Amino acid sequence: MNKGILIVVSAPSGCGKGTILAEILKDERFYYSVSATTRAARPGEIDGINYHFLKKDQFEELIREDGVLEYAEYCGNYYGTPKEKVFEKINEGRNVILEIEVQGAMQIKEKYPEAVFVFVAPPSVSELKNRLEKRGTETAEVIARRVSEAAQEISYADRYDYVVVNAELDEAIADFKAVVRAEELKSENSRKIIDEVLKNA
Amino acid sequence: MNKGILIVVSAPSGCGKGTILAEILKDERFYYSVSATTRAARPGEIDGINYHFLKKDQFEELIREDGVLEYAEYCGNYYGTPKEKVFEKINEGRNVILEIEVQGAMQIKEKYPEAVFVFVAPPSVSELKNRLEKRGTETAEVIARRVSEAAQEISYADRYDYVVVNAELDEAIADFKAVVRAEELKSENSRKIIDEVLKNA
Repeated sequence: MNKGILIVVSAPSGCGKGTILAEILKDERFYYSVSATTRAARPGEIDGINYHFLKKDQFEELIREDGVLEYAEYCGNYYGTPKEKVFEKINEGRNVILEIEVQGAMQIKEKYPEAVFVFVAPPSVSELKNRLEKRGTETAEVIARRVSEAAQEISYADRYDYVVVNAELDEAIADFKAVVRAEELKSENSRKIIDEVLKNA
Repeated sequence: MNKGILIVVSAPSGCGKGTILAEILKDERFYYSVSATTRAARPGEIDGINYHFLKKDQFEELIREDGVLEYAEYCGNYYGTPKEKVFEKINEGRNVILEIEVQGAMQIKEKYPEAVFVFVAPPSVSELKNRLEKRGTETAEVIARRVSEAAQEISYADRYDYVVVNAELDEAIADFKAVVRAEELKSENSRKIIDEVLKNA
């Protein structure tokens, strides 16, 4: 059995990343890596589903033991990716999806350049603005900040391996699947297949 | 417009490469590069379709002018890939398919590592033998030679970027398409798309 692939996905908010990943995760060969945080659970959030909720000293021990793939401190709380589960699933042959912001992705790229980095982009920044306005859940001020953050994040897209533009949801899902399939077909991941083909030659 | 991709495809004979490529070439975004040769046209072969049939001095002038991507001499005749048309089509944004044997592919890899190298493999060498026997068009001796050549060619598969195993034709075609789509989505090929997304940000 071949190992699974570590897939790091970033996207500005409002790009439909969640919808794309929900579709991808219907396939059991994929595993969604749940982040850890030291912030308190909000009403309705479940430990192990939304986050692994850790105490500050637990998280700091993880950091000391090199037990996180990446982490950041934000508003006095830690956020990060526990390493153990990720590699356990990869060794079981599952493709592990890490949904993470740009800075965390760049940390992982330094340590694990063999991971696959996918950036999901909106068709345009102005379209992203339209989408956020249509939702009607945020103030004009929040939308303006999000759009400006998105533009900044998109400027990092060329440091990712692939850019999937979500103009049409179905196409974006198909593109995401094509990326993963192509990665599976890479010859360095096909060594066992080649040996199999050559058996009894 | 983005440039097209140069796709170099090799496969042992009997792997169904021709059938896969015929399907891929139904899509106008692909262009099939016709090889040049100095051997005489066989009955039914058409200049510009099966081969570009050249005189020996024409071919040697091409070589001198660095006008071939790769070439080889075989049974006293030259075989090779004229460069001009390939890059003309790539610049027009079309994906150019070069169907070529392993040695020629390795020559191209040295000069154009940015090309995409796809190896089409049979599910197994013994299955390849079965397929050739079922065709019933070749003697046992010819089949034995082909199988042994195939095994040798497959041992080069890990120098290609991707390995597509043709066990089920439909899956092999889908895999081939996934590889091309993923290459199109690579961030270095998406630079213009990223600029477009960021426009008016």
